[in-house]
Amino acid sequence: MKFLEKLKQAGNRNKSLLCVGLDPDPKLMPVGMSALEFNREIIEATAPFVCGYKINLAFYEALGKQGWEILSETCEFIPRELITIADAKRGDIGNTSKAYARAILDELDCDGVTVSPYLGYDSLEPFIEYQDKGIFILCLTSNQGSTDFQMLKTEYLGQKRFLYEVVADKASLWNRYENIGLVVGATQQEELKKLRLSYPKLPFLIPGIGAQGGDLKATIENGTNPNGELAIICASRGILYARSGSEFAQGAAEAAEQMRDAINHYRKRF
Amino acid sequence: MKFLEKLKQAGNRNKSLLCVGLDPDPKLMPVGMSALEFNREIIEATAPFVCGYKINLAFYEALGKQGWEILSETCEFIPRELITIADAKRGDIGNTSKAYARAILDELDCDGVTVSPYLGYDSLEPFIEYQDKGIFILCLTSNQGSTDFQMLKTEYLGQKRFLYEVVADKASLWNRYENIGLVVGATQQEELKKLRLSYPKLPFLIPGIGAQGGDLKATIENGTNPNGELAIICASRGILYARSGSEFAQGAAEAAEQMRDAINHYRKRF
Repeated sequence: MKFLEKLKQAGNRNKSLLCVGLDPDPKLMPVGMSALEFNREIIEATAPFVCGYKINLAFYEALGKQGWEILSETCEFIPRELITIADAKRGDIGNTSKAYARAILDELDCDGVTVSPYLGYDSLEPFIEYQDKGIFILCLTSNQGSTDFQMLKTEYLGQKRFLYEVVADKASLWNRYENIGLVVGATQQEELKKLRLSYPKLPFLIPGIGAQGGDLKATIENGTNPNGELAIICASRGILYARSGSEFAQGAAEAAEQMRDAINHYRKRF
Repeated sequence: MKFLEKLKQAGNRNKSLLCVGLDPDPKLMPVGMSALEFNREIIEATAPFVCGYKINLAFYEALGKQGWEILSETCEFIPRELITIADAKRGDIGNTSKAYARAILDELDCDGVTVSPYLGYDSLEPFIEYQDKGIFILCLTSNQGSTDFQMLKTEYLGQKRFLYEVVADKASLWNRYENIGLVVGATQQEELKKLRLSYPKLPFLIPGIGAQGGDLKATIENGTNPNGELAIICASRGILYARSGSEFAQGAAEAAEQMRDAINHYRKRF
């Protein structure tokens, strides 16, 4: 099944655009609990309220030798009807990108992956060739440093365009399999709105709600298409660590349900 | 010890600017040999002829659950007096970059790492804060796709500069600990020369020799400083797979020695 179709089905099933980031932080998890057990309980508790999960590979690499195994077992816990996006931000020359693509999209069998555009098309092609997967290209990120390069004015096809706009434009040109999306942070609403209007058919993976300060109402209004779709709203810490100690899973379920409902409240048509 | 000092000592010890890329490819390695055993023999055979090793993390992720362990044991095989650079091309928002930096520079204890600039300063800061490590920022890469974004003309401080030039300039501004370097491909000699003249004190990590077509003589002339230093010349397939079958290690030793000597032949003062 194509990524967009799976995303739609998952979103309809749980009436949700919410994507929970599984970022297990040993300092915030219940004392003595393994990352794998934490993830398992979080997934069980939140699965009814989400369209999928985002797995940030850095947190698993930081777990050392067990990291990849925990990552791979975590992926197996996620119900098959929900989407799993590997937040990898990879991008390397051909051969190497091929190795990353195989590891993430074959080995782990994730439904989607985030990739970094700096090295250009041939660095992304090995990912894009997985026609049924969702390939999310970093476009405008939610952090302060996004102004350093993404907001540079460039000359592109005779016009002045910001670098992130060039990235979005090239992404749409490379989208022959309809499997490309953009990562657009929730902290820059004007730009989010412009991007949505320019690229009505691309799915947007939207981090930056919550801890990073993105406004939920504006994000939903600006980031979804006219049917209230094609936005994947990421949240991590606000869900995972909503309550501490033994009530963490119950806390996560409540926080996910609340956020799902708040998102739906703001969706234009739903 | 600071990275630049360690690089200098390693380079002097073996009279070498050569950095062998440890990219174990099951399809090219001797049949039935494990990646770990392959790396161990390659390191033993080539250690006298190199300043260090570059480890491309993608190849280890592609090995699945054992990948991280093989990576970590490979790092332990590398003689402590040589440098180990993790070719990771990471770059993520603060918390996540912190996790990557810890995994690569603490856990694996690599001497250097490659990072991707697209997310800007705060995505690189957690790496840069490791003051004794070498942080190599992707600037101008050796692949075709480098023209897609790196060669865009931008407006920067009132001047027209290519994006890769802006990256180089910001990198030099962020270099308060003298631990930053640039990744500059060997396939674009004019630009390599200009960058070396503009940034005489930054170490350059230079891939693209050999399979990718970079010219060795021009690369050494353009990429080293007036003392014939500060260039780390990467080679992988041409060394690792110089001979097939049981003679692979001997073949790698000969290829590394030849390349070390060819590099030295072209160094301006040596």
